[in-house]
Amino acid sequence: MPQTPHIERHFTASARVRDIVIGMSDGLTVPFALAAGLSGAVNSTGIIVTAGLAEIAAGSIAMGLGGYLAAKSDAEHYASERAREELEVREKPAIEKAEVRDVFQSYGLTAEESEPIVEALSKRPGAWVDFMMRNELGIEKPDPRRALTSSLTIAGAYIAGGFVPLTPYFLSSSARTGLPFSVVATLVALMVFGYIKGHFTGTGPLRSAIQTVLIGGLAAAAAFGIAKVIA
Amino acid sequence: MPQTPHIERHFTASARVRDIVIGMSDGLTVPFALAAGLSGAVNSTGIIVTAGLAEIAAGSIAMGLGGYLAAKSDAEHYASERAREELEVREKPAIEKAEVRDVFQSYGLTAEESEPIVEALSKRPGAWVDFMMRNELGIEKPDPRRALTSSLTIAGAYIAGGFVPLTPYFLSSSARTGLPFSVVATLVALMVFGYIKGHFTGTGPLRSAIQTVLIGGLAAAAAFGIAKVIA
Repeated sequence: MPQTPHIERHFTASARVRDIVIGMSDGLTVPFALAAGLSGAVNSTGIIVTAGLAEIAAGSIAMGLGGYLAAKSDAEHYASERAREELEVREKPAIEKAEVRDVFQSYGLTAEESEPIVEALSKRPGAWVDFMMRNELGIEKPDPRRALTSSLTIAGAYIAGGFVPLTPYFLSSSARTGLPFSVVATLVALMVFGYIKGHFTGTGPLRSAIQTVLIGGLAAAAAFGIAKVIA
Repeated sequence: MPQTPHIERHFTASARVRDIVIGMSDGLTVPFALAAGLSGAVNSTGIIVTAGLAEIAAGSIAMGLGGYLAAKSDAEHYASERAREELEVREKPAIEKAEVRDVFQSYGLTAEESEPIVEALSKRPGAWVDFMMRNELGIEKPDPRRALTSSLTIAGAYIAGGFVPLTPYFLSSSARTGLPFSVVATLVALMVFGYIKGHFTGTGPLRSAIQTVLIGGLAAAAAFGIAKVIA
């Protein structure tokens, strides 16, 4: 089972933009909500900065290293499924030909209509396997060389995002005075980020900006409420 | 651009298992690392429990609501790309036929070999569009009805995972005494979870168990180290 997000071939943005979006979404939201939540319970900026930096370290490692290992597994999963498909094409061509017919039948074609393409594919084992990987198994080929760059980009974006809500606490003498600056700085950052993100994802800039602010705001409000109740 | 993980059709586990894996991976790791990190700086279980619960609230909302909105966007993205493809098939059939030929050429077939299938597909607009969505654009049809269940499952798994590292702090009088119990409980949980997860993902149970423990352990060690340095 693929553990990494699927990348469409006709991609409207580069894969790097996508990694930045994934890392920064969580990096802006979770440390922000945690810091805001703790502000509801303690007034020491030292504890909030410590918790925030600990969260940024934990979150970026979980996303970056977790993503790296998942990408490696996906690449190996693809390679092993492909090897099995290659073996089947070589040793059980009749069954595999029937599977090609099944694929075209699922697209609504008759056995007669699909026969020429079945014959043509069966003469080119490499192309045949490519076709089966996508149309029978529905898996796109992952790019194993991107795993490292991708993970570092996601982790870096998480760290960069996380410093936006934390910086006001670095500069304030108490959590109560830091909180409003952190809220304003992060909501503005979420809005700008959501707007730019919507441009790339096709969600539409305005709607994406509203959604991003909503998620961050709700997460922070929930964390703040819980901390208030306990403290 | 799809923002949700791609689900393979020949899936070895149910989609629900996959959602539990996604939520619990982060739920076990990040609150664990945060609590361990804070234990390096403060000795009050009250602050650690507050920070931990605030993190669980923030993380589960960011993952759950974020995932829900991303799934909705993916479904809309699919629908709009599909509508465009339907329009093109209706209004520019010659160009779309050439694109089908291009697809088969990318699989190594000649224009002559692909002609019968091009003709057969062009008689069935629905199947033609299905074929183009997967083979030209490389996008699988998302299931919009799963968005809500999926998000709630991910958020629930995050919360359940997060209570494993936090429970020892609930039961301890100080962070120093809670920490070793939290570390042992979480590392055992990560090992068991990684083992089961490896069974479903095809990574292999043992290797998956080692990887999961490694990510959690590194994240916690980094958070603890940073907190020690600041405090």
